[in-house]
Amino acid sequence: MSYSEMTTGELKALREQLLAAYEEKKGLGLDLSMARGKPSKEQLDLSMPMFSIVNENTPMVGEDGMDFRNYGVLSGIKEAKRLFAEILEVEPENIVIYGNASLNLMYDTVARAFIRGVLGSTPWSKLDKVKFLCPVPGYDRHFTICEFFGIEMVNIPMDENGPDMDMVEKLVSEDPSVKGIWCVPMYSNPTGIVYSDEVVRRFANLRPAAEDFRIYWDNAYCIHHLYRDKQASLLNIVDECRKAGNEDMIYEFCSTSKVTFAGAGISALAASEKNVKSIVGMMDAQIISFDKTNQLRHALFFPTMDALKEHMMKHADIMRPKFEGVIDMLDRELGGAGIASWTRPLGGYFISFDAMDGCAKRIISMCKDAGIVMTGAGAAYPYGKDPRDSNIRIAPSFPSKDELMQACEIFIICVKLVSIEKILETR
Amino acid sequence: MSYSEMTTGELKALREQLLAAYEEKKGLGLDLSMARGKPSKEQLDLSMPMFSIVNENTPMVGEDGMDFRNYGVLSGIKEAKRLFAEILEVEPENIVIYGNASLNLMYDTVARAFIRGVLGSTPWSKLDKVKFLCPVPGYDRHFTICEFFGIEMVNIPMDENGPDMDMVEKLVSEDPSVKGIWCVPMYSNPTGIVYSDEVVRRFANLRPAAEDFRIYWDNAYCIHHLYRDKQASLLNIVDECRKAGNEDMIYEFCSTSKVTFAGAGISALAASEKNVKSIVGMMDAQIISFDKTNQLRHALFFPTMDALKEHMMKHADIMRPKFEGVIDMLDRELGGAGIASWTRPLGGYFISFDAMDGCAKRIISMCKDAGIVMTGAGAAYPYGKDPRDSNIRIAPSFPSKDELMQACEIFIICVKLVSIEKILETR
Repeated sequence: MSYSEMTTGELKALREQLLAAYEEKKGLGLDLSMARGKPSKEQLDLSMPMFSIVNENTPMVGEDGMDFRNYGVLSGIKEAKRLFAEILEVEPENIVIYGNASLNLMYDTVARAFIRGVLGSTPWSKLDKVKFLCPVPGYDRHFTICEFFGIEMVNIPMDENGPDMDMVEKLVSEDPSVKGIWCVPMYSNPTGIVYSDEVVRRFANLRPAAEDFRIYWDNAYCIHHLYRDKQASLLNIVDECRKAGNEDMIYEFCSTSKVTFAGAGISALAASEKNVKSIVGMMDAQIISFDKTNQLRHALFFPTMDALKEHMMKHADIMRPKFEGVIDMLDRELGGAGIASWTRPLGGYFISFDAMDGCAKRIISMCKDAGIVMTGAGAAYPYGKDPRDSNIRIAPSFPSKDELMQACEIFIICVKLVSIEKILETR
Repeated sequence: MSYSEMTTGELKALREQLLAAYEEKKGLGLDLSMARGKPSKEQLDLSMPMFSIVNENTPMVGEDGMDFRNYGVLSGIKEAKRLFAEILEVEPENIVIYGNASLNLMYDTVARAFIRGVLGSTPWSKLDKVKFLCPVPGYDRHFTICEFFGIEMVNIPMDENGPDMDMVEKLVSEDPSVKGIWCVPMYSNPTGIVYSDEVVRRFANLRPAAEDFRIYWDNAYCIHHLYRDKQASLLNIVDECRKAGNEDMIYEFCSTSKVTFAGAGISALAASEKNVKSIVGMMDAQIISFDKTNQLRHALFFPTMDALKEHMMKHADIMRPKFEGVIDMLDRELGGAGIASWTRPLGGYFISFDAMDGCAKRIISMCKDAGIVMTGAGAAYPYGKDPRDSNIRIAPSFPSKDELMQACEIFIICVKLVSIEKILETR
């Protein structure tokens, strides 16, 4: 029954029940988190054999004759480039292998534009204003990078097909201070949506006012399906950009942080030949090479794409029951109440939850008081400001299923309580 | 016999002999390098057991309860902080662990000052001019960082005790655009000298005009002795700065690149509490953590300082014969000729060689034609410009002893030939 159709008396009675339940849960002194998209211990254990695959007896000379342990091979070893070339369906020549964090790669890519410019354009540090478009809700750490560099962020609404492309096209083609857009095109953080073919094509066909405009395509979850039989697919943006004569406009980012180890994976950039040449040229001032032995670990652990895909299905088997557990409980407890909506992703790491306007902060605060840490309210928006104060990102991966269900139960009590308050306030 | 005392006829006769020898060597079609300070295969093999020390059965939870494989622990694991705290003789709280390259750490440290400033000062990107003092000859990659950021470099002469401190004190205290100085204080690259206690104390007592002036103390070779019985020592700059009320003025850098693996070590910054807090705060925009499993490898491989010191002596046993081989040959072939001087380092990776003025480029070019790659002439100077065109950096570590001796022989022939030309030109 929809809460808004309940009488004030019914709502108050329900509130009493819920308050009692809340106080009981609070008394348990729990300390659980649904805050960050961290793999669970069980998932990390899947890749433990990778630590033995490179050992004291492993031959340490690569196919190009280079010692993996020594200095050199700035853009990454061939063996690892091939792996990412297969994952991203590009040529190995278009791949640069980075360190253990694609976040660091994205940060550095923005930093290089800030310090030295993009293919000869004016460095952003010399410009009065630089803007990035930010489809919302989105990934908080993208926004933190912008804040760090003083880049002004412009919210772009999203629907189930991706960002509002009318708005993107208008801003990108008319405003030369718009230098980039952050995208998580596949199993988006946090909504789980996958950009439609039309959206990808419209991206590839952008006609930017700024020559140094780039699409920052964070394909973090490209192989992170939750199901064997229901897998989304994403059009290859690199191909589409090339077809549109826009091959220099795209930077695609990827990593194995949620494939092998969140803190000890490897990351990669896919970009045009011209971009790769320029970026590797600038990297030369920064480092002699990233850790090639960890690149080797990955290349040996995933000898084929099939091996990689099978490995990802093991992740899916661990993650799926958690996602389904949360969604089932939300359906059961909040379905038809008319006080919230939530996503049903086929992959990625998040469920995006929308409470009634003006409720997210209070829900998260109540959860915290009962020992449940959620991602901060507004985190999925630039400057931490959710204009409707309604979005909450749920990250089901890290806790055990039992803990997750406990946390979810308390979360739902908080949602109900805050929603009732909100409805009563307006009567 | 001094070449300058030889008659023109004698010199010409000698030149004929040397040219014949040179042509013969050239005919061998060699391809050898004394260019970069890379460890040899034999040295890299010393650390192979480190690859087995973390394996699929290793417990992956640290003493603070954090899973080494997952996200988190931005400033590095306690186990690794302790290791570097011992190496640098500072407190673990003053250590930040970075990725596989102290070069990247130094680059990022300059980048953060450029982008966001130092402890609240104006970001360097907003200033018309930023200068760094560069003791010469020095490390080419320090100078490349300056060039990348458009930082003007000022040469500072060095003697056997370190940089000319009168000049350093004057420039640092009078010019607020001087924001830093690059130092390799121990077994300096390339001269091998060790800063005297007086020089270290004068550094610690600098009174900079700029509040954001920092000493960039690249202690790359702090445990890289060549001898068991003849080891230099360096005064602890962090302690000295604290005594002088200047604890925020020092950034000390260090890595295991030449302890374990040149491409797969770990690196560290030592700095004051205030600097560490500010830097880690900024790192938060860049990365969630560096590879903690590699930090663990190092902490397990070096359970005590004694183990580390013993390991370094194995490096010394491999390196020492190479250094002595080169120095012996230089002594034998060029001693008393009055056409060159060279250093006799007790540690580090280089021998610094000074030819007659105006000869370095030609010597290196002749070497190259005979298949011997030397570090580029002028590389040890800002902008690649050796004002006297005399300095040549010899890196004996990478080739085998036999190859090294072959290369050295050709190098000496080239030195003699170019010097004779030079002398004859002035007659």
